Amino acid sequence: MSVSAYQSLCELARERALISTTASVLGWDQETGLPPAAVSYRASQLAWLSGKAHELTTSDRWRATLEAAEAEGSDDPVVAANLREFRHHFDRSAKLPRELVERDTESSSHGKAAWVEARKESDFSRFAPSLNNLLDIAREKAELWGYDGEPYDALLEEYERGSDTAEVANLFDRFRKPVAGIAREAVENSRSTPADLLDAHYPIEGQKALNREIAESLGFDFEAGRIDTVTHPFCTHLGPSDTRLTTRYEERNFLSSLFGVMHEAGHGLYDQGLPGSEHGLPSGQAVSLGIHESQSRLWENHVGRARPFWEKWLPRAAEIFPNLHTLSLDDFLRGVNRANYSCIRVEADEATYDLHILLRFSIERHLLNRTLEVADVPEAWNTEFESLFGFRPPDDANGCLQDIHWSMGGLGYFSTYSIGNLNAAQLHAAAIRDEEVASACTRADYLPLLKWMQDKVHATGSTLLPQDLMESVTGERTNPEHYLTHLRTRFC
Amino acid sequence: MSVSAYQSLCELARERALISTTASVLGWDQETGLPPAAVSYRASQLAWLSGKAHELTTSDRWRATLEAAEAEGSDDPVVAANLREFRHHFDRSAKLPRELVERDTESSSHGKAAWVEARKESDFSRFAPSLNNLLDIAREKAELWGYDGEPYDALLEEYERGSDTAEVANLFDRFRKPVAGIAREAVENSRSTPADLLDAHYPIEGQKALNREIAESLGFDFEAGRIDTVTHPFCTHLGPSDTRLTTRYEERNFLSSLFGVMHEAGHGLYDQGLPGSEHGLPSGQAVSLGIHESQSRLWENHVGRARPFWEKWLPRAAEIFPNLHTLSLDDFLRGVNRANYSCIRVEADEATYDLHILLRFSIERHLLNRTLEVADVPEAWNTEFESLFGFRPPDDANGCLQDIHWSMGGLGYFSTYSIGNLNAAQLHAAAIRDEEVASACTRADYLPLLKWMQDKVHATGSTLLPQDLMESVTGERTNPEHYLTHLRTRFC
Repeated sequence: MSVSAYQSLCELARERALISTTASVLGWDQETGLPPAAVSYRASQLAWLSGKAHELTTSDRWRATLEAAEAEGSDDPVVAANLREFRHHFDRSAKLPRELVERDTESSSHGKAAWVEARKESDFSRFAPSLNNLLDIAREKAELWGYDGEPYDALLEEYERGSDTAEVANLFDRFRKPVAGIAREAVENSRSTPADLLDAHYPIEGQKALNREIAESLGFDFEAGRIDTVTHPFCTHLGPSDTRLTTRYEERNFLSSLFGVMHEAGHGLYDQGLPGSEHGLPSGQAVSLGIHESQSRLWENHVGRARPFWEKWLPRAAEIFPNLHTLSLDDFLRGVNRANYSCIRVEADEATYDLHILLRFSIERHLLNRTLEVADVPEAWNTEFESLFGFRPPDDANGCLQDIHWSMGGLGYFSTYSIGNLNAAQLHAAAIRDEEVASACTRADYLPLLKWMQDKVHATGSTLLPQDLMESVTGERTNPEHYLTHLRTRFC
Repeated sequence: MSVSAYQSLCELARERALISTTASVLGWDQETGLPPAAVSYRASQLAWLSGKAHELTTSDRWRATLEAAEAEGSDDPVVAANLREFRHHFDRSAKLPRELVERDTESSSHGKAAWVEARKESDFSRFAPSLNNLLDIAREKAELWGYDGEPYDALLEEYERGSDTAEVANLFDRFRKPVAGIAREAVENSRSTPADLLDAHYPIEGQKALNREIAESLGFDFEAGRIDTVTHPFCTHLGPSDTRLTTRYEERNFLSSLFGVMHEAGHGLYDQGLPGSEHGLPSGQAVSLGIHESQSRLWENHVGRARPFWEKWLPRAAEIFPNLHTLSLDDFLRGVNRANYSCIRVEADEATYDLHILLRFSIERHLLNRTLEVADVPEAWNTEFESLFGFRPPDDANGCLQDIHWSMGGLGYFSTYSIGNLNAAQLHAAAIRDEEVASACTRADYLPLLKWMQDKVHATGSTLLPQDLMESVTGERTNPEHYLTHLRTRFC
């Protein structure tokens, strides 16, 4: 039997996936315990792999196979979608000269070092030259990729296929004022809840046991995954049956690691729900960061911070941590959903989280459009922070220097955090319109909810663009009203 | 400045090292915690890497660069040695057709599965067809590589450069009778030592702490290495500054993990002592399994089971494990060096260990020479076992099926375990002829011993052949007398 050009193209794509997942194993290992002296050799190993991936995906062979597969055509919608995505990614890769890709990688590596230094000293001016350089590279990439509206469009496309900046800005404009109001009210309503309501000693072995039990109960498959300890938690997908969650532990706060695990397990359940037989092909890949984040926030917030979840799990948690016996469910939930402003995004609660995203999106967009100079970032940050939060951060480390993303060239990316929140609420609302799902959720049985997400969201891989997926699954494109309703119900 | 062909060759070799160390990271990860469902995808990742390595090392580019470098020549002995080794390995790789390499890999994988099954049932006949097939492949490789005496020569060359079977057989003949006699005497002398003399509860966290403290005191660099927990312990070298030891824990026997760690740390200290700037080149590589094993056995046995070591470390161990306070140093050492026959090599003590190696070497050699049929292995094994140990194993699982090596195509390999023991004793004897080393050892200060090994053994990489190294460092080729003297002193 002759092999079609499309099958050959899939073979090439599977080879690329072997390379990229190998790099991901090395990346996971780097975060979970690489000996300090081994960092520079690890960078050489990763550079070799990324060189091989680039060689393959920009090769004449890849191009010719893609063209032949396109010429063959197909009536199969999955094949057609895969061809669409293969073409899209090939064209984008082909537009960037290798020199730029290498300069990008190198600048990110230097940028990260400069950021670490600047943050330690809480002095933005030390990071400013790197950021200028990284912005130049980002704009250069955007020009080569091309865009209709503004440079952010071209960058966002990398993370959120088919979206544009105007659409995101419009969404954010619609929910900026209400979400700021909800945050204010939530903080106000939490004043009577003591900050140390849940403060106690929670042995780490107990946290590990509870986290694992809960992740398992949500449907996370430990035959095809694991949980490890790191400084900066993440979830990574190292192959069709290898999904690794990570977390960190605080002895005085078991919810920190638990919600961390539920968040990463949300990412992991999505990865485990992708069709394994399609691994390496668009039809087997997660579709966008905004959909990925919808899954993590779904399990962390819509499931994990809701009353039915704790009706079931508080008694179990109290078996492991006996001090919890002294708390009523109501008091415990007040502690779980206590809201307060924080300068630092990664420490923010659900009610105030999006304010951080709105802020950075605005600053980043201005920077890319050159309507804000790099030197003026701290002032612009603090002013806009004040308009959202009502106070100014004490210094740059707690302000514009807090996140690593810019220093690694991660521009055009941050808005997907809030898109994820909006999508989570909208998907959750759609799922519980199914009565079986809704009634199971009230009994803290979340397997029907997972099944719903698997069937509607995970199984389609990247065959639909993110907004087409939202429309097909929920009946409309991303709409902030569902999220606002959810926040009002929880906090007001 | 123009780049010499030799420099280009070194670049290629460094690229090969990037590939092989990447594969080693994946291998380490597989042993330390790969989710069960991910095994087959991991095999695909490893196959891709080994394909790339094979492509590179058998490429026309590699051949032409090697030839050009040879034509350049060099007066530098390190360059000359590297060229010698590059040529040797290139010729050997070029002699094996890709088809055979792939058949070898596949047969090993099937062989392993058949062995697991056969061992579980303790039924050698289930493994016999696989072993026949693996022996055919081994003989085929040996014919392609070529040999003067017998097929084992060509296989041994892969593990112990420049040795031949007759030399090994001669060594083993010389020490078979005395070592069997020492074993008998050691077992006899241990009859009065209760088997449960050191049996107690040793919490694993305490074992971990002690192991780490001791490995550190021997000079193992944790900035460039780590210790993890596995089922089958090993040491792996993932780059010039990344050496990973592994061990397993028994709650009732802290010496099992401690001596395991000291053994693997011996391998690791060798790896850490190789010149990092030469990583990927023969001058930066360990020279042979017989030298590698000399380092592991040196630290495990010559250091770790000796009185001065425990004069220092027993008080510290007793701080962690208070039950040890009840034992005198003499009693403790009787427990440490208690000898008894075991059917299983990996459970064997120092006094009886080599009997297992002599046995398997003899059987393996007969099989390769077709002077023993596969079907007759169990009978031959048990008969020869009885002549060495004085009793017969109860079944195949405790006899000829105990070790995994044959099933993975590891033929021509086992003899290096005893060569390592002989070399360890000979190198140790040479080192303590240096008075500073000897006197420091009596105070349990082993850094001068490490320095001696680093200077004489580690620093030369593979620039000398193993037996030339032994001769240059100790004044003679491997000679069993040093080992016999050591065993007699310890056990008789």
